[in-house]
Amino acid sequence: MAEIVAVAGLGSIGAGAARSLLRAGFAVRGCDVRSEATAALAADGGTACANPREAATGASVLLLFVVDAAQARAVLAEALAVLPARAVVVSCVTMAPADAEAIGAEVAASGHPFIDAPSSGGPTRAIDGSMILIASGTPEAFDRAGPALAAIARKVHRLGDRPGDGSRLKLINQLLAGVHIAVVAEALGLAARLGLEPAKAQPILMEGAATSFMLGDRGPRMLQEVPPIHSAIAIWLKDLGIVTEAGEAAGFPLPLATAALTQFRAAAEAGQSRDDDSTVLRVYQRAAGPRPS
Amino acid sequence: MAEIVAVAGLGSIGAGAARSLLRAGFAVRGCDVRSEATAALAADGGTACANPREAATGASVLLLFVVDAAQARAVLAEALAVLPARAVVVSCVTMAPADAEAIGAEVAASGHPFIDAPSSGGPTRAIDGSMILIASGTPEAFDRAGPALAAIARKVHRLGDRPGDGSRLKLINQLLAGVHIAVVAEALGLAARLGLEPAKAQPILMEGAATSFMLGDRGPRMLQEVPPIHSAIAIWLKDLGIVTEAGEAAGFPLPLATAALTQFRAAAEAGQSRDDDSTVLRVYQRAAGPRPS
Repeated sequence: MAEIVAVAGLGSIGAGAARSLLRAGFAVRGCDVRSEATAALAADGGTACANPREAATGASVLLLFVVDAAQARAVLAEALAVLPARAVVVSCVTMAPADAEAIGAEVAASGHPFIDAPSSGGPTRAIDGSMILIASGTPEAFDRAGPALAAIARKVHRLGDRPGDGSRLKLINQLLAGVHIAVVAEALGLAARLGLEPAKAQPILMEGAATSFMLGDRGPRMLQEVPPIHSAIAIWLKDLGIVTEAGEAAGFPLPLATAALTQFRAAAEAGQSRDDDSTVLRVYQRAAGPRPS
Repeated sequence: MAEIVAVAGLGSIGAGAARSLLRAGFAVRGCDVRSEATAALAADGGTACANPREAATGASVLLLFVVDAAQARAVLAEALAVLPARAVVVSCVTMAPADAEAIGAEVAASGHPFIDAPSSGGPTRAIDGSMILIASGTPEAFDRAGPALAAIARKVHRLGDRPGDGSRLKLINQLLAGVHIAVVAEALGLAARLGLEPAKAQPILMEGAATSFMLGDRGPRMLQEVPPIHSAIAIWLKDLGIVTEAGEAAGFPLPLATAALTQFRAAAEAGQSRDDDSTVLRVYQRAAGPRPS
């Protein structure tokens, strides 16, 4: 019989991971508050479950792909009671390191190995099984969850035993990525304001010292009138919020991350929370004064 | 007889361009306020000149590799009087677009075609002839200067006829590059503060959405106790100064560029002007409060 993996949270990333697990021959039990998400999983050969308790039943690995620490706690409140002995809990949620530590301690106290493994790479990589996991956890946890992780990730970067370190590095990743998106908006917005054609400038900028993944990915989307939604503004309120809180707690100044968060907050306040994050450009355009003559 | 190209300013970039021109068979006449720079050019087969007037004599192209607009004006005040008819002036200086426009108008008024062609790629690319030029100027100017530009640059991005547009795009390039350096310091500094090993984190971050040219280039230098000087802090006071002034003049908000400039200014105020720009990390480290217990 195929090994059972439970997936809690079937948003774009969780759904992609579930598909990768099915392709690799796992039996996948999934739950999500949206019934259309579980129905889609069932259509692909997985098992639609009504709640985390049902999904976790019989699973040797429980993967968390929910939105935040509060949702992760809610899933575990139901699932830990039914998970088989030594089944591994893997959190792929971006959350504050302190939350990852607390949840890891709680899971360990219930007798289950835990991996703090925030994912990177977005929906596209999730679907084709090539996401990257930044993960910390005990050797036992990696031994047991190894085949499932190999099915969903192209690479698992191991950062030692401590839950929290995976989340710490993810937070650093998000600091860079969030600032990079905002500065692409700042740069392309200024370019247009100075009379350059951003569509002509972007590929030139990509060739030199100014290049970044975000310039190549979000840059072209910023030039579209209504960009498709790949990653929402709201994600950056959460993730850069985690970043700036970590900076404050550690007594470390983060002027650029704070400035970028301010731009995403302004976007959200203008009603763009669910729009693609490339629309942060509009915050700059609205704040620009009248064009000097 | 070989075509004569004059090079004014034999710092690391100008010296590299001069070497590339010699390799391509041009006769190179160079000047610099530092006599050791002209002596080194002579040792490589070029002609050491005492001043811009001497360098420009007989040249069909005059390349400006000085530090700023004021130095460019000082060179032209001497050189324009002796440049042969229709000899092209090419400014590879990073300067404010308004300065490039004014200098371009002055050069044109004296009967010489002008190209506003700030360079990108740094000393390494200058030496091997693979720098990138972001250039605007008339077709006549490009026709005449074409072979010399091909000798020093891997690619010349043409942005139309107007002097100033080359400088505008270079300014956008520097906005991104400068912010990227500062945010790498912010990210790796926070990583260390949170107990991660930055040397282990940097290659992981390079693989995902957080990657940038600067993370790969400055990141490893930030981890050295005394990094070699490739590009000084002082360059960013000048270049991000040009950026923020352009933003103010255009009525366009630049919160990230302004925050990055503040970090480089703090570095300069602490005596790091001539240190490698990767040492901006120390500004963060000094500003960090006592580590919470």
